[in-house]
Amino acid sequence: MALDQHEVPDIVVGRLPVYLRALSAMKSGGKQYTSSHELAEWLGISSAQIRKDLSHFGEFGKQGTGYSVIGLYDELRQILHLDQDWPLIIVGAGNIGSAVASYTGFSHRGFRVVGLFDNDPTKIGAQIGGLTVQSNNEIPQFVADSHTQHAMITVPAQYAQQVADILVASGIKAILNYAPINLNVPHNVHVEYIDPVLHLQKMTYYL
Amino acid sequence: MALDQHEVPDIVVGRLPVYLRALSAMKSGGKQYTSSHELAEWLGISSAQIRKDLSHFGEFGKQGTGYSVIGLYDELRQILHLDQDWPLIIVGAGNIGSAVASYTGFSHRGFRVVGLFDNDPTKIGAQIGGLTVQSNNEIPQFVADSHTQHAMITVPAQYAQQVADILVASGIKAILNYAPINLNVPHNVHVEYIDPVLHLQKMTYYL
Repeated sequence: MALDQHEVPDIVVGRLPVYLRALSAMKSGGKQYTSSHELAEWLGISSAQIRKDLSHFGEFGKQGTGYSVIGLYDELRQILHLDQDWPLIIVGAGNIGSAVASYTGFSHRGFRVVGLFDNDPTKIGAQIGGLTVQSNNEIPQFVADSHTQHAMITVPAQYAQQVADILVASGIKAILNYAPINLNVPHNVHVEYIDPVLHLQKMTYYL
Repeated sequence: MALDQHEVPDIVVGRLPVYLRALSAMKSGGKQYTSSHELAEWLGISSAQIRKDLSHFGEFGKQGTGYSVIGLYDELRQILHLDQDWPLIIVGAGNIGSAVASYTGFSHRGFRVVGLFDNDPTKIGAQIGGLTVQSNNEIPQFVADSHTQHAMITVPAQYAQQVADILVASGIKAILNYAPINLNVPHNVHVEYIDPVLHLQKMTYYL
C-alpha cells in the first residue's frame, strides 16, 4: 500500500522533462528564482498542475521566494536519473537516422549517441555524425559491451518490428520509435513514439 | 450550453490520429472489421477508453460485428479534416529539416510539403526533397499565395521564436516545432512539439 502511494502517474512523469527544459533555459539566462506561476506562463500548463506534479516528489520551493532554479533543476535531473550520461544507439542510417545521429543537443541533456547501425551494405562503414555505421548483426554484442539501454529506431515502418525484436533480445530497455507503427514489446521495455504526422493531424482538427 | 457539450477534450483529439494510423494499417492489411478490444491490443489503450473517445463523435460500430475498418477510417479522416491535402512549409534546411522535407510519408496522410526555407545564403537555391530552398524573406508572400496554414520549424533553438513570429504574421495557424524551446504564439495558433530528448528522459525515469 505504501508503495502504491509513491507511484507517480505516467502523465506526470512525462511533464518533468518539460519542466527540466524550461529550468535549463532559465539557468542559461542567469535566472536564480522562479515560481509555479512563471513556469505556467512559459509552458502553458496551469500553476496548480505544476505544484501538484512536483508535490509527488517532495517539498520544493519556499513561500515567498519560490523555487531556486538551479536547485529544482538538479532535483529533477536526479529524479529522472539524468545525473549521468546514458549511452544511446540508433538503428537506421537513412535521412532521419543520420540527422538525429548528427544532432548535438543530446550530450548536455543526459545522452550520448555511441552507435549507429544499418542493414544496407552501401551504408555500412560510412561516417555519420562522428560514428561509423555498423551492421545490424553487431547490435547484440555492441549493446552488451557498452551497457546500452536506450535505442532509437529510424528504419522504414516495415522493418521496425524486427529491429525492435533484435533490440529487446539484446537487452535494450527504452526505445524511441520514429517509424509510424506501434511496436509489440515486453512489458519491461518502454517505448515512446515520434510521428510528426500525428501532431499535424491533431492540429488540423482545430482548423 | 449546447456548444459546450460538443467540445471534445484536447487529449481525446490527440488520440484520434493514433486510431487513424492503426486503422490505416488494418486497411492496408485487407482487414474488414475490427473492435475496440482489437484496437486496444494494438495500441496499448484500454478498449473502454477507445469506445469513450469515439462516442464523442457519434455512434460507430455495431453490436456483434464491431467497426467497419474502412468506415471508421473514413469517418476519422473527416472528423480530422484530412479528406483533403493540406500544404505544409518547413523553415530550416539543416539536417532535420532536410530529412523531413525528403520524407515520403506525408502525402497519403493529409499533407504535402510545398516549401522549404532557410536564412543561410549557402543553402538558398539548393535542391532538397524535390524542393528549392528559398529565403525566409519569401515566407509571407509564399504562405499567402499557397494558402498554407501548416508549418514546421526546424531551425536551431535560438532562432525558433523569431521564425514563429514570421510564420504567425504570415497567417500560419498550426506550427510543429522541432526546436527544443517553448514558443509564444497567439491563442488562435496551434503549436505542437517534437523533442526526442523529452521522450528519452521520460523513459529514463523508469530505468
